[in-house]
Amino acid sequence: MGRVVLLTDFGTADGYAATVAGVVASGAPDALIEHAAHDIDPGDILGAAIALRRYALHYPPGTVHLAVVDPGVGTERRPLAATVAGRHVVVPDNGLLTLVFQHTAPSAVVAIQRVGAGPDAAPTFHGRDIFAPAAAFLARGEPLDGLGETVADPVRLDLPGPERTGDAIRGQVLHVDRFGTLLTNVPAGWLRGAAAGRDPTVTVEGISVGPVHRTYGDVEPGALLALVGSLDLLEISVRDGRADRRLGQGPGATVVVA
Amino acid sequence: MGRVVLLTDFGTADGYAATVAGVVASGAPDALIEHAAHDIDPGDILGAAIALRRYALHYPPGTVHLAVVDPGVGTERRPLAATVAGRHVVVPDNGLLTLVFQHTAPSAVVAIQRVGAGPDAAPTFHGRDIFAPAAAFLARGEPLDGLGETVADPVRLDLPGPERTGDAIRGQVLHVDRFGTLLTNVPAGWLRGAAAGRDPTVTVEGISVGPVHRTYGDVEPGALLALVGSLDLLEISVRDGRADRRLGQGPGATVVVA
Amino acid sequence: MGRVVLLTDFGTADGYAATVAGVVASGAPDALIEHAAHDIDPGDILGAAIALRRYALHYPPGTVHLAVVDPGVGTERRPLAATVAGRHVVVPDNGLLTLVFQHTAPSAVVAIQRVGAGPDAAPTFHGRDIFAPAAAFLARGEPLDGLGETVADPVRLDLPGPERTGDAIRGQVLHVDRFGTLLTNVPAGWLRGAAAGRDPTVTVEGISVGPVHRTYGDVEPGALLALVGSLDLLEISVRDGRADRRLGQGPGATVVVA
Repeated sequence: MGRVVLLTDFGTADGYAATVAGVVASGAPDALIEHAAHDIDPGDILGAAIALRRYALHYPPGTVHLAVVDPGVGTERRPLAATVAGRHVVVPDNGLLTLVFQHTAPSAVVAIQRVGAGPDAAPTFHGRDIFAPAAAFLARGEPLDGLGETVADPVRLDLPGPERTGDAIRGQVLHVDRFGTLLTNVPAGWLRGAAAGRDPTVTVEGISVGPVHRTYGDVEPGALLALVGSLDLLEISVRDGRADRRLGQGPGATVVVA
Repeated sequence: MGRVVLLTDFGTADGYAATVAGVVASGAPDALIEHAAHDIDPGDILGAAIALRRYALHYPPGTVHLAVVDPGVGTERRPLAATVAGRHVVVPDNGLLTLVFQHTAPSAVVAIQRVGAGPDAAPTFHGRDIFAPAAAFLARGEPLDGLGETVADPVRLDLPGPERTGDAIRGQVLHVDRFGTLLTNVPAGWLRGAAAGRDPTVTVEGISVGPVHRTYGDVEPGALLALVGSLDLLEISVRDGRADRRLGQGPGATVVVA
Repeated sequence: MGRVVLLTDFGTADGYAATVAGVVASGAPDALIEHAAHDIDPGDILGAAIALRRYALHYPPGTVHLAVVDPGVGTERRPLAATVAGRHVVVPDNGLLTLVFQHTAPSAVVAIQRVGAGPDAAPTFHGRDIFAPAAAFLARGEPLDGLGETVADPVRLDLPGPERTGDAIRGQVLHVDRFGTLLTNVPAGWLRGAAAGRDPTVTVEGISVGPVHRTYGDVEPGALLALVGSLDLLEISVRDGRADRRLGQGPGATVVVA
C-alpha cells in the first residue's frame, strides 16, 4: 500500500487538485492519497519549497510526494522525480526541492520521460498528464529509474545566505507564515557563536526585538520575541499576535543578531 | 475497499464537512474518504458542476462522489444518486451533474428514498442525514437501485450555448478559476472550422486577445492569450497573471472567435 | 487499521499540518489520516470546540481525534488524551473538549507524559512532537493509560448559559458559521416550554426574527428566520443570505424567545 501526498497552488474549488488525485487513484488504486496543501500562493515556489522542507521527511520512507507549483508549465522546464532519504518526490524542475536537498542530498534524480502522456500531455496541465501518472507509477512500487534518465543539475533557488562579520550575524527574512511569524535564514547553530560573552540582541531592519527566547511563554501576551523555530532557524514572533504587522516587515527584510 | 470523494460548499472550519465524512466512515468503515473541495462559493451550483466535470471521471470506476451544494435544503428538491461510466454520484437534484451528464450520459439515476434518516432527517442538514448514508451504502457495494426508484428527469442547469454565424463563433464566459483564467463554453473542436483560411482572432466583449495559442510559453510573461484548456474548451489567460482583472470581465461576458 | 482525524488552526500552506500528519503516518503506518479542518481562526478555541462537538462522535468508535488549537504552547498547559463514547481525543488542555464533554462525559482523561519527545519537544510545536506521537500511539491500538496519569480536572471553557424567566428564554449567540448563521446556546428542548399557549417569537438584540420555523423553505428567499439547527440548538439564519450581516450581530449578542 503506497502513500501519495499532494501539494499544489491549484486551490481546491476548481477541481484541478481532485483531478490530480483522481489520476493517482486510477493509477495506484491501493495507495492512500493525502492532501498537504493546495493553497500555496499561485506561483510561490519558495513558499512551497519551505512547506516541503517542513513535512516531506516526516512521512515514512516509501511515501511519494507530488508537488506541483508550476508557473513554467508549457515551457521547456523538465519534469523531475527524485529519491531523498527513501521518500520519493515528483516535481517540475524549478527549485521546489531546494530546501529539502539542502537538508538531505538526494540519492537519485531523474527526468520523467517514459511515464505520462508524453507529447499528448495537455500543455497547460502537466499535473494531470505527467506528474500524477509518475507519482502513481512510484506508488505502485515501480523503480525511479523506470521514469527516465538521471539528471545531474536540478534547478535550485538562488536564496540569500546569512553572513557573519566578527561576532555579528546578518541574515534575511525568507517567509511569513499564517501566524505572521517571520522565518529567517539564520541557523540556530550560529546563534551560540554570536555576540560572544553576552546575550545577543536581534534587530529587524533596525528595530530591536530583544534577546533570543526559548518559547512564547517567556514573554507577555502581545510582546515581540525572537526564538528558534521548529526548523532550527531564527524566527521573529509576537505572542498571540502577528510580527509581520507589528514590524511592517516581510520577506527580504534584514535581520541582525549582535 | 470503496472510495468516497466529497465536494461541498460547507467550508471546513465549522465541522459540517467532517460530520458528513464521519457519517460515511461509520457507514462504510473500510472506505477511503477523500476531500475534493469544501470551498465552493456558498450556493454556487455551476461552480461545483464544473469542478465535478473536471475530476469525477478521473477517479477509478466504483468511486462514490458525494457532492452537496444545496441551497434548496428544506424544500421539495429530491435527493439523487446516479451511475456514470461506472462511478456513482450522490447529489441534491439541482443541476450539479449537468456538465458530467453532458459529457457522459448516466446509465441509471434514482431518487434516494430508502436509505438515510427519511422523515427524521434534520431539515437543514441533508448532507449528514441523507446524502452521507446513501454514499456509505454505495461504498459498501450495495446496488444503486436499492436506494430508490428511477428518476427520468434530473434537473439540468440552463446554460448558454455557443453559436456559429458563418465562420464566426459567439460564446460566453462560464467561470473564472483561481488563476483568473476565463473558462468559456466554446469547444476546441469548433475552432478548427472558424475563420476558414486564416488564423482566427479571439475577442472578449470587443477587446482583442489575439490568436489561439498552444500554451503559456508561447507568449511573454504578462501577456494575454487565448488557448485550449484541459477541458478542451477555449480559455482566456494572462501568463503569470489574471485575465479576469486585466479584462475586467467574468461569467456571462461574450467571447467571439472570428 | 486505525483512523486519525486532524483539526488545527495551522492552515495548510506552511506545511505544519502536513508535518503533524507525517508524524502520525510514521508512527501508525496503517492508519487512515483525515483532515477535518486546518482553517480554525488562529487561537479560536471555542470555534474549534464547536466543530469538534459537531463531528467527533459521528466517526466510528476507535477513531482518534487530534485537535491542536494551542495558543498556550510553550506555557505550562498540559497535553491531554481522553476517551469519549469509544472515540479518543488528543488535545492541549485549554477547553477544546468543553462541548463534547457537555454532551457525553468522558470515560477516561489522562495527561500525556510517557509518549512524544518529552523535554526534547520543540517548545513551539507540540503538535509535531507531543500530540502527533500520542495520536499515533492510540491509532496503533495502544491503551489510553499508557500515555500518562489520570487527570480529574480538564479545563472547561466558561460559556454563558441560557436562562429562563417565567416563560421567556434569554440566551446568547455563541458562534457565526460560514453561511452567516448565528448559533445560539438555547436548546431546542427549551422552546417547547416557552411562551406557553402561543407561538414564541425570537428577537436578537431587540430585533424581531419572528417565530421558530422548521426549515429554510418555510420562508421566502432573503427572509430572516429562526429555526432549530442540526445541533438541536436555536439558530438565526437568512434563507440564501447571511444573518450576521443582516442583523449586524455576532457572538455575545442577546437572544430572547418570548
